[in-house]
Amino acid sequence: MRLYMGLIHFPVYNKDHERIASAITTLDLHDLARLARTYAVKRLFIITPLEDQQLLARRILTHWQVGYGARYNPDRKEALQRTRVVATLQEAFSVVSQKEGCTPIMIGTDASDTKDRTISYAQARRIIKNNEVVMLLFGTAWGLHDEVINAMDRVLVPIKGRDGYNHLSVRTAAAITLDRLI
Amino acid sequence: MRLYMGLIHFPVYNKDHERIASAITTLDLHDLARLARTYAVKRLFIITPLEDQQLLARRILTHWQVGYGARYNPDRKEALQRTRVVATLQEAFSVVSQKEGCTPIMIGTDASDTKDRTISYAQARRIIKNNEVVMLLFGTAWGLHDEVINAMDRVLVPIKGRDGYNHLSVRTAAAITLDRLI
Repeated sequence: MRLYMGLIHFPVYNKDHERIASAITTLDLHDLARLARTYAVKRLFIITPLEDQQLLARRILTHWQVGYGARYNPDRKEALQRTRVVATLQEAFSVVSQKEGCTPIMIGTDASDTKDRTISYAQARRIIKNNEVVMLLFGTAWGLHDEVINAMDRVLVPIKGRDGYNHLSVRTAAAITLDRLI
Repeated sequence: MRLYMGLIHFPVYNKDHERIASAITTLDLHDLARLARTYAVKRLFIITPLEDQQLLARRILTHWQVGYGARYNPDRKEALQRTRVVATLQEAFSVVSQKEGCTPIMIGTDASDTKDRTISYAQARRIIKNNEVVMLLFGTAWGLHDEVINAMDRVLVPIKGRDGYNHLSVRTAAAITLDRLI
């Protein structure tokens, strides 16, 4: 399996559908790192262009990887070791392309279902199982900006409740998505 | 579907396998309430005997149900409306029994797999589909204390990664469990 994952903090939407950079949520880093470890995702990229936010994310990672946290909780250390902080999606794309020797298939996730190029969980599962290089992208705040969505090769169908309610946190949405795909 | 859910803060284990009461995590309330709403869970119980923690949880609920948060984010209001704070598991059990006119089947969740009375996701799915009254319980911190596990009718098999790693947060574990069951 050659699956990569990215958590995007810019460009995403805010509540009023404006283009923003969201702040790092500490728990997102922990939850997604542990999910990545559980589902054998090769690397989790935390993507934010804001330098103070990169610093914050790196400080959290360092604490759990080599600081007190690494001794306090080795399971968490192991999870966070596959996490990297980068400034842009392009940078994550380059790292993966170089590492794998080919460009990844970019699959976005979105809570709204008006997008073209949608792909079902079964289809995405087949691609991943075929050992293709895949980068799965999640948006923070109110979700990935159309700029990102438009740059995707495919977009996963949204997770929907029994009556169409679909306002999950990125943590729980990522958990459900990975469990369905792997 | 007559499914209920409980998030237990006491008695749970800490890292050293001691019996503790854990603190309320704000994001747990939000994530689990939104999951409950998404998967048509009838009620989410936040269970803690600590009065200051009950107060904190109720303050969060009030903010999003009738305070500024209700206007700011109606989707979240809707999710949190099915959330109740109670002191004990017994209290949650009584509320559900009274409401439904019969006692719920209690199903615990646990990351370790040494328990008897385990039940598969397929088996639990059938029980829920049969319209039985079910209460699904999740533990905070390092998981449900054996006192709680021993009081369960059944215990769900743990969620496991590809190589056995199973250190997920209660938020992401609950998301995966509900998605598998419903």
